[in-house]
Amino acid sequence: MTAYAIPPIDPLRISFSAAHGTMTPEGPLLTRRMSDVAGLFADEDARRRAADGDDPVVYTVAASPVPEAAGELPQSLTTILPGAVSGEFHMTKGHMHPDPQGEIYLGLSGRGGVLMYDGTRTEWIEMEPGMIGYIPPGWAHRSVNVGDEPYRFLAVYPGSAGHDYGWVVEHGMGRRVYRDGASYTLAPFSAAG
Amino acid sequence: MTAYAIPPIDPLRISFSAAHGTMTPEGPLLTRRMSDVAGLFADEDARRRAADGDDPVVYTVAASPVPEAAGELPQSLTTILPGAVSGEFHMTKGHMHPDPQGEIYLGLSGRGGVLMYDGTRTEWIEMEPGMIGYIPPGWAHRSVNVGDEPYRFLAVYPGSAGHDYGWVVEHGMGRRVYRDGASYTLAPFSAAG
Ligand SMILES: [Mn+2]
Ligand SMILES: [Mn+2]
Repeated sequence: MTAYAIPPIDPLRISFSAAHGTMTPEGPLLTRRMSDVAGLFADEDARRRAADGDDPVVYTVAASPVPEAAGELPQSLTTILPGAVSGEFHMTKGHMHPDPQGEIYLGLSGRGGVLMYDGTRTEWIEMEPGMIGYIPPGWAHRSVNVGDEPYRFLAVYPGSAGHDYGWVVEHGMGRRVYRDGASYTLAPFSAAG
Repeated sequence: MTAYAIPPIDPLRISFSAAHGTMTPEGPLLTRRMSDVAGLFADEDARRRAADGDDPVVYTVAASPVPEAAGELPQSLTTILPGAVSGEFHMTKGHMHPDPQGEIYLGLSGRGGVLMYDGTRTEWIEMEPGMIGYIPPGWAHRSVNVGDEPYRFLAVYPGSAGHDYGWVVEHGMGRRVYRDGASYTLAPFSAAG
């Protein structure tokens, strides 16, 4: 199965692989390459050069068949590949939920974190395998790989939540996350230039 | 913290222990002893004798501080202690969600499963550590320890879902789960006698 199941759906056994970034049974698989994330990194010229070059995958999102429909509780496994654009670490586009619902991330492998922004306050939660990051309703969220291996996490979110990517384009995320030696540093947000 | 946080709540890092059945930070802890589960097992006389004896713990539910409130996505870690009453394995009371919302269970340790019942159809999902059991909206759910170690799982469910225990008392769960040598067998449901 490579599409969402149609409600009403039956009870399901779902397995996932922290080593491969897959879910079984499979729902839709989303792949975001450098050419899919215009305006995401502060250095837009460098992003365009990378897109015009080998156009690397920035992240993938493998969903289970549980659909994004009201009343369901879908799950997905995100893999952010390691890398940076002018020192700014690979990250997801980030979104706000149009229906203000909470979400959990469960760390699976690699080194990463969740940047959250409610329009006023910004929070950074460093993730570890086996740890939950809780995203309260009303907080936009973006994940960042700050290591040199794939960073993977499982997301569980109400099917009604939705994805408003435009909110993040308009408001930013409060911070950007840059490489700093073997670690990282959080810098004030700046629009892509 | 041994109570739910009051909304609006801030982003949270939450860790949990599959070895100890705890969540950190802590929310409320529920303990169900044999004396708390009158009418749960088919052999009510044997249950009462156990309650009048050393009244063993049947299961505990350790919640995170994320509250059971609309828009939040609370989590809890259930530990079902090994044991049986006249051959019927230890289990949770089970409930239906008054607000029809899905739920996921993530297997953590031990051997167990989820019994689900929608009033007509009954399903049994055998759980494994690292596996998700998906409970669709409209299905009552009960967990059972079919092994001889504690069985533990993490639950994630919308805060609006609620717990209707009366539905299960009235309708049963379609099946009962009994010890069968080193394994288990599913028998037709019978009311406690
Ligand atoms: Mn989300
Ligand atoms: Mn439930």
